[in-house]
Amino acid sequence: MASKIQENLEQSNNVYITTFTEGHLALPPAKKYAVLTCMDARIDPARAFGINLGDAHVIRNAGASAKDALRSLVISEQLLGTQEILLIKHTGCGMLTFKNEDAHAAVRTNLGEAAAAEIGGLDFLPFPELEEAVREDVRFLKGSKVIPEAVTISGWVYEVETGKARRVV
Amino acid sequence: MASKIQENLEQSNNVYITTFTEGHLALPPAKKYAVLTCMDARIDPARAFGINLGDAHVIRNAGASAKDALRSLVISEQLLGTQEILLIKHTGCGMLTFKNEDAHAAVRTNLGEAAAAEIGGLDFLPFPELEEAVREDVRFLKGSKVIPEAVTISGWVYEVETGKARRVV
Repeated sequence: MASKIQENLEQSNNVYITTFTEGHLALPPAKKYAVLTCMDARIDPARAFGINLGDAHVIRNAGASAKDALRSLVISEQLLGTQEILLIKHTGCGMLTFKNEDAHAAVRTNLGEAAAAEIGGLDFLPFPELEEAVREDVRFLKGSKVIPEAVTISGWVYEVETGKARRVV
Repeated sequence: MASKIQENLEQSNNVYITTFTEGHLALPPAKKYAVLTCMDARIDPARAFGINLGDAHVIRNAGASAKDALRSLVISEQLLGTQEILLIKHTGCGMLTFKNEDAHAAVRTNLGEAAAAEIGGLDFLPFPELEEAVREDVRFLKGSKVIPEAVTISGWVYEVETGKARRVV
């Protein structure tokens, strides 16, 4: 028995394939770059950032965390040839609204001690100030020895209220 | 001096904002679900999976790894109210083409010993067989105590050659 969400995927995909003509694209991103942004539901990277199918890796996690994305970024660059990273956080991010202790308390209260023990001291990587978090993540990537100096890195803020992306660093 | 990639973002975004009308959307995903898929350049989740702006979290990493996405999934469910996960891996995935030792060798050869030391024994999370990897990740999520049993989880394969998404589990 499919859920409504699963039915929506199947029905939407059945329509998508009727006009799909891009089955020839190669595995490595054609324009050799990676976009790292948040999982937030209000961001559509392809449309908002002008990414054509096949052009770029798109990495998304809670808060567009560079630390969390490091495994994916190393694979993107060392094995699939990307040479530039656009790091894009956004206004109204959930990561601005809680602290690590709040997330751990929610897990303990909602799911119990066994769940709390499973994640242990996990860093949920929240941040208190948006632009400073963009700068800090760009510094982290520039300071990492697994991201070569030749990789171009820029940091941006996307405004969910206006659709505007503006460069921070 | 902006790179061509950065110029493309700015120019595309300047066009995007001229028709942007969705600045009112709330932070929690309206349809209360999360899609976890790969960073692969050939996937456009919004179009291929029928995700309207504001409806769902979209988490993307190398290989659509559930383990790698656990921090984001816990935030999605415990703090932002999502109740369903669609896990979607894909044909032709880069993660099928290498082993952990290949990735570590690439880092050591291209970037040197200091870079290799920085990532230590990092698990790049490659997998040798696609559908089994989907099943294994769904088992991992269902077995995790931080994903409540009430969360609906399904596993899919997206075919980059045809645009088709088909359910595995």
